[in-house]
Amino acid sequence: MPKMQAVQVAKAGGPLERVERDIPEPPERHVLIKVQACGICHSDSLTKEGLWPGLQYPRVPGHEIAGVVEKLGAGIEDWQVGQRVGVGWHGGHCGHCESCRRGDFVLCKSALVPGISYDGGYAQYMVAPQEALARMPDDLADVDAAPLLCAGITTFNALRRSGALAGDVVAILGIGGLGHLGVQYAHKMGFVTVAIARGNDKAPLARQLGAHHYIDSEAQNVAEALQALGGARVILATATSGKAMSAAIGGLGVNGKLIMVGVSEEPVEVPITQFIMGRNSVQGWPSGTAADSQDTLAFSALSGVKPMIEEYPLSRAAEAYERMMSGKARFRVVLVPGK
Amino acid sequence: MPKMQAVQVAKAGGPLERVERDIPEPPERHVLIKVQACGICHSDSLTKEGLWPGLQYPRVPGHEIAGVVEKLGAGIEDWQVGQRVGVGWHGGHCGHCESCRRGDFVLCKSALVPGISYDGGYAQYMVAPQEALARMPDDLADVDAAPLLCAGITTFNALRRSGALAGDVVAILGIGGLGHLGVQYAHKMGFVTVAIARGNDKAPLARQLGAHHYIDSEAQNVAEALQALGGARVILATATSGKAMSAAIGGLGVNGKLIMVGVSEEPVEVPITQFIMGRNSVQGWPSGTAADSQDTLAFSALSGVKPMIEEYPLSRAAEAYERMMSGKARFRVVLVPGK
Amino acid sequence: MPKMQAVQVAKAGGPLERVERDIPEPPERHVLIKVQACGICHSDSLTKEGLWPGLQYPRVPGHEIAGVVEKLGAGIEDWQVGQRVGVGWHGGHCGHCESCRRGDFVLCKSALVPGISYDGGYAQYMVAPQEALARMPDDLADVDAAPLLCAGITTFNALRRSGALAGDVVAILGIGGLGHLGVQYAHKMGFVTVAIARGNDKAPLARQLGAHHYIDSEAQNVAEALQALGGARVILATATSGKAMSAAIGGLGVNGKLIMVGVSEEPVEVPITQFIMGRNSVQGWPSGTAADSQDTLAFSALSGVKPMIEEYPLSRAAEAYERMMSGKARFRVVLVPGK
Amino acid sequence: MPKMQAVQVAKAGGPLERVERDIPEPPERHVLIKVQACGICHSDSLTKEGLWPGLQYPRVPGHEIAGVVEKLGAGIEDWQVGQRVGVGWHGGHCGHCESCRRGDFVLCKSALVPGISYDGGYAQYMVAPQEALARMPDDLADVDAAPLLCAGITTFNALRRSGALAGDVVAILGIGGLGHLGVQYAHKMGFVTVAIARGNDKAPLARQLGAHHYIDSEAQNVAEALQALGGARVILATATSGKAMSAAIGGLGVNGKLIMVGVSEEPVEVPITQFIMGRNSVQGWPSGTAADSQDTLAFSALSGVKPMIEEYPLSRAAEAYERMMSGKARFRVVLVPGK
Repeated sequence: MPKMQAVQVAKAGGPLERVERDIPEPPERHVLIKVQACGICHSDSLTKEGLWPGLQYPRVPGHEIAGVVEKLGAGIEDWQVGQRVGVGWHGGHCGHCESCRRGDFVLCKSALVPGISYDGGYAQYMVAPQEALARMPDDLADVDAAPLLCAGITTFNALRRSGALAGDVVAILGIGGLGHLGVQYAHKMGFVTVAIARGNDKAPLARQLGAHHYIDSEAQNVAEALQALGGARVILATATSGKAMSAAIGGLGVNGKLIMVGVSEEPVEVPITQFIMGRNSVQGWPSGTAADSQDTLAFSALSGVKPMIEEYPLSRAAEAYERMMSGKARFRVVLVPGK
Repeated sequence: MPKMQAVQVAKAGGPLERVERDIPEPPERHVLIKVQACGICHSDSLTKEGLWPGLQYPRVPGHEIAGVVEKLGAGIEDWQVGQRVGVGWHGGHCGHCESCRRGDFVLCKSALVPGISYDGGYAQYMVAPQEALARMPDDLADVDAAPLLCAGITTFNALRRSGALAGDVVAILGIGGLGHLGVQYAHKMGFVTVAIARGNDKAPLARQLGAHHYIDSEAQNVAEALQALGGARVILATATSGKAMSAAIGGLGVNGKLIMVGVSEEPVEVPITQFIMGRNSVQGWPSGTAADSQDTLAFSALSGVKPMIEEYPLSRAAEAYERMMSGKARFRVVLVPGK
Repeated sequence: MPKMQAVQVAKAGGPLERVERDIPEPPERHVLIKVQACGICHSDSLTKEGLWPGLQYPRVPGHEIAGVVEKLGAGIEDWQVGQRVGVGWHGGHCGHCESCRRGDFVLCKSALVPGISYDGGYAQYMVAPQEALARMPDDLADVDAAPLLCAGITTFNALRRSGALAGDVVAILGIGGLGHLGVQYAHKMGFVTVAIARGNDKAPLARQLGAHHYIDSEAQNVAEALQALGGARVILATATSGKAMSAAIGGLGVNGKLIMVGVSEEPVEVPITQFIMGRNSVQGWPSGTAADSQDTLAFSALSGVKPMIEEYPLSRAAEAYERMMSGKARFRVVLVPGK
Repeated sequence: MPKMQAVQVAKAGGPLERVERDIPEPPERHVLIKVQACGICHSDSLTKEGLWPGLQYPRVPGHEIAGVVEKLGAGIEDWQVGQRVGVGWHGGHCGHCESCRRGDFVLCKSALVPGISYDGGYAQYMVAPQEALARMPDDLADVDAAPLLCAGITTFNALRRSGALAGDVVAILGIGGLGHLGVQYAHKMGFVTVAIARGNDKAPLARQLGAHHYIDSEAQNVAEALQALGGARVILATATSGKAMSAAIGGLGVNGKLIMVGVSEEPVEVPITQFIMGRNSVQGWPSGTAADSQDTLAFSALSGVKPMIEEYPLSRAAEAYERMMSGKARFRVVLVPGK
C-alpha cells in the first residue's frame, strides 16, 4: 500500500485543487476505504461554496462513495479488508442523543456528512466510521453504485416508506439526478408511475425509465393532468422549487401525500380546504441511514435500477464538478480515481 | 304523535324564522327522529348566510342532533323506535362512488349534510338516512351529546388516528368549540396535553379541562414554547387561521405533524428544510362517519368528556344563533325543542 | 337478446348438470351480466358438495366471473350496458351491519358469495348486485381475468397490505392456483421473492414466474432455508395445511409475519418465545372487496401478471370441475360459455 | 464514597448470598449507579436457577433498577453525577449488528441483560452502559419506579404500539405483576379495559385499577365473555400459559390481535378459519429499550400509574426472592439497599 494519495480539496474562494496527502490511519471504530468511484451531487456546492455553517477548509468533498475496505481501525468486527462498501450522505451519528437512542439516526443532532464534517470521496482514500458503511452487492458496478448512495437512497427510501401500495398512482416531480432514479424505483415497486418535467424532450427518456405517463409542466396544468389520471396517491417532489411543488398539490387524489426531498427556500403553500376534504398531506423526507443505503443498493441490483452517468477521472474533478453544476449532465457525474 | 311541528328555517337574506310544518314520513331506509337537542355550529352560517353552493331555501339548519327514533321507513332492520340516536355533519352517502366503494364514506362525492342537503335539527322532528345514525350511550345527556356530533367527533377522530402514542406531546391550537373538547380528549388518551390560545384568561380553564401546559400565543412565541416542551408530536389546529397554523409549525418535534381541522382561506406555509430535517408533515382531517360519531359518544361517556354548553329553547333559535356567532359563548350553544 | 340460457347446476349428491333456464331480470341496484369466462376454484366444492351451511339446491356455482353488463336494474348510475366487469368471491354486502358501517365490507355479517348465496358464473348469464362489480381493464382477456377475481385478489391484496417494503424477503408457501399468482405479484412489487413447494419439479416454473429463490420443502428444512436468506419479512401461506404453515414459522426474520390465506382445519402452532424475541406475528387475510378486485385486475394488466389456465367450454363443466379438483391442472381451470 | 459494598449473589445450587465487594469503576461509556431500589422479577429465576445459557456464577441478579448516577466513565456527555436513572431488562446492545444498524436495539444479537450478562441491582452499587439508562421523572419514587422498568415497560410499550385506538376494547389476560400495571395503562390510554384472571377475588382490585369489566376465567368462557363485550381489539397476554392464550383467542373481535408478552413453553394454537374470517392476528412483543423505559416512567408519573409493591431491605434478598416466586406477593417485591 502506498503512503501518499491524491485528493481534490475545496478551499476558500477558489476551484477544486489537487493535493498530495498522507493516507490516513483509521481510528477506533473507523475503516480506511480505497475509493473506486465517487458521485458528484448538487449539495457538494455546500462544501465548494462554503455554504455549510462551521465548515472548515481545506475540505475534500464527496458523499457518494463506492470503495473497498483497505484497513480496519480498532474495534471493528463486522467488516473485512477487501470488502466492497458504500458511504452516502449519512456519514455517522453520535449514538446517544435523543434521536439516536430511539434508533432514528438520520435525525441525530450531531450527524456527520462526508465531504462536509470530514474529508469525503474526491480522493483515492478516505476514512469513515463503521456506522456509515453499507454492504455492496457483487453485481453492482462501483460507478453505478456511487450515485445511488445519495440520489438513489433518497428516492428509494421515500418511496418504499410512502404508504403507497402497489398499483397506486405515484408521480415523480422533476426528472433530474434524483427523479430519473425515482421513476425507475416507482416502476419497479409496481406503482402507476407518472413523470413530471418541464418541456417535452424528457418524455421518451421518462418512458424508457419506466414511466407509464408523462406530464409536461410547461404545456399542461400539472394538477389537472394528475386528476385526469385519478389523482396521485403520492407525489415525490425532487424538484428544488417550492413553487413547482405548490403547483402540483392540486393533483393529489384522496388521501394523497406530497413528499418533499428537494430543498427550496420558498415555502410550499398548503390549501387548507382541499387538504381537509381530501385528507391530503405534505411531508418532508430526510434520505436515510447506511442500512437504508444498503437496502437501496440491494434493491437496485435485484431489480436492475441504474443511474445514467458521465464518468470523469479524479484528476479532472474541477471540470466534472462544473459539468454537474451546469445542469447539463445526464444525470449524474461520477469521479473515478483509477481512471 | 302530533301531525305538525315547529321548525326554524333559514331564508334568503333574513333571520331564522319559526314555521309550522307537517311532520314528514320517513322514506325507505330513513328514520324519523324526534329531536331532543341540537347544537349550533359555526358552519351553520353556511346555511344561514347561503354560502354553500346549490343550497335551497327555505332550509332548516342543524347538524349536531341528539334525538329518539320516532318512526322507521321501509327496509330498516338495525334501528328501533324509541332508540336514542345522534346525527352529525356526515349526514349520508351514496354508497357507490369510488370513495364509498372503498369504505371511505366521509369522502363520498355526494355526501349529504343535515341542515344543508336536507332539513336539519333546528326542529322538533327531522328525517335522516340510516347511514347517518349513531347509537347513543345511556349515560350521556342529549344536550351534552349534541355538540359531540360535530365539534367532538372532529377532534376525537383526528386525535385517535393521529399516530401519536400515549405519552407524546400533543398540542391543541385554539381553545373554542372544538379545542375545549380536543384538550379533554387529548388528556383522556394519555397525551402530554398542551393548550394554545390567545391571551391568558383561558389558562385556568384549559388546565381544568386537562391541559398539562398552556401557551399564550399573544405573549409567547408558540414555536419556541413548544420546542421548550420537547417539540410537539401532533398539533391539532382547530383555529380557523392559516396564519396561526403557519406560526405554530416551528413547534413540531421530530416526526411531528400538524393536523388541520379548522378551515381558513389563507394557505398554511410549509418550510421545506425544516420539514425534511425533522420528517415533519401537515395533514387535513375531514371529521368522520356515523360510526366515528358513535365511537366519539361512547368514548365521551366512558371517560367523562363533556362540552361546555349554553342551552336555549328552540323557540329562541335566532337569538341562540347570534350568541354562537358572537364568539362569546362558552363554548357551544344547544337548542332544546322540549324546553 | 335470447330469453333462455344454459347453466350448470349443483344438486344434492350428483354431478354438475346442464339445465335450460330463463335469463333473469336484474332487480333494483343489480345488473345482468353475460358471462364470458368463469374460473373454477377449489372452494366451488363448498357448493358442489353441499358443505356451506344453509346452502340451497339447485345452485349454479362460480365466483370468478368475467363478463359484460347486459342489462341494468333500477337505481344503477355508475355502470353501463356493454361495460366489461368482473365479480369475485365477495359478491355483496348488507351495507348496514357494524363492519359495513366501518367500510370493512369483506367482514360483513351477511356477506354474499356468488355461486353460494345466489347463482354464480357456471352459466351464460347471471345477476349480481352493484357492490360486487369490478371494472375490467381493456387489455386483459376474460379468461385471464377470471381466476384473478379470487386466486388473484387474495394474494395481491394480502401482499400489498402486508407491510413488507420493496426489497424485503417475501416467501410464497405453496405454488398452486394462488401461489403461482402470488409469486408473480411478489416479484412485480419488488420483493426478494421465495417460492416454497413440495418437490423440485416446480422449481423452473417458479423461477420463470419471478421467484429469486426456490425451496423444496421435501428436501430442505423450510425454516432453515429461509433463515439462510436472512429470514422472511412475510410468508404468504397459500398451502391449505396448518402443519406446513407451522413448519415454516421458524423461517420468519425479525418483525416477520406469516399471513394465512389458505384454509385448514389444523391450527397453526405459534412458538411463544420465538415470537417475543423476533416480534413475529401470524395473521389471517380475508381476500377483498370488489374495489380490491378492480385494483387486482388493473395491477395485473399494468404489470403483465397472468394466471396459467386450462380452458373448457361451459358444456363440459363437470369434466372441468373434476380436472380442477384433481390437483393436476396447471393452475386454474376456466369455463368459457362462448366456446 | 465508600470503597466496599454489599451485594447479593446467585451461586450454583444455593440460595442468594450476601457478599462484600469492591465498588467497581465505570469503564468507558459506562456509569456507576448507586442503587436506590431494585425490583424482583420472575425472570430473575433465570439467574438464580442458572437457566440462562452461558450464565457465569457468581452473578448479582436484578434488572429493575432505580438509582442515582454516582460516577461517570470516560466519554459520557449526556448524564450527570447525581442524576436519577433507571435500568431495565434491556441492559445494552452492540450498536453494529443488523438490528442495531436499523435502530431496533431490543433485537440486538448481543443484547445484554443486567443481572444475567453483568452484575445487576441486588446491590448497593452497579455499573451500566450508557445506552441502558433511562431518565427518571422527579415525582416518581424509586420504589415505585423499579418495577416499571420491566413489568411496566413491557405492558406500556406493547399497549401504546398495539394499534388499538382510544375507545377500543382491550383485555389484559392475567392480573399479576405485569397485568396489574397493564390494566392501569390501558385505562389511562382511554381503552375500554377488560381484566381477565382466575377466580373472582381479584375483581374488586381490577376495577380499582381501572378495569371497566372483569372476566373470571374459572367461572366464565373467556372467549364468549369477550364477544359479549363486542370482541377485543387487543388481548394483552401477560399470563405465562400458552393454553390460557389459546382459550382467549376466540374472544378477538374483527381485526383483533393477541399480543404475547408472557413466556410459555406451550405453543399458542391459532384457528385458521377464525383468523381469516376476522382478519385476526397473534404477535409477540419484546419489551423495549431504555428510551421506551424513559417513556414508561414519564407516562406513569404523568398519569399516576403505580405498581403495588412489598418492600424488603437488600439484606433480606433471599427471603424477598422467595416471596416473589411464591406468587403470593401483591404484586411486585422491591429491594431497598438503604433500608
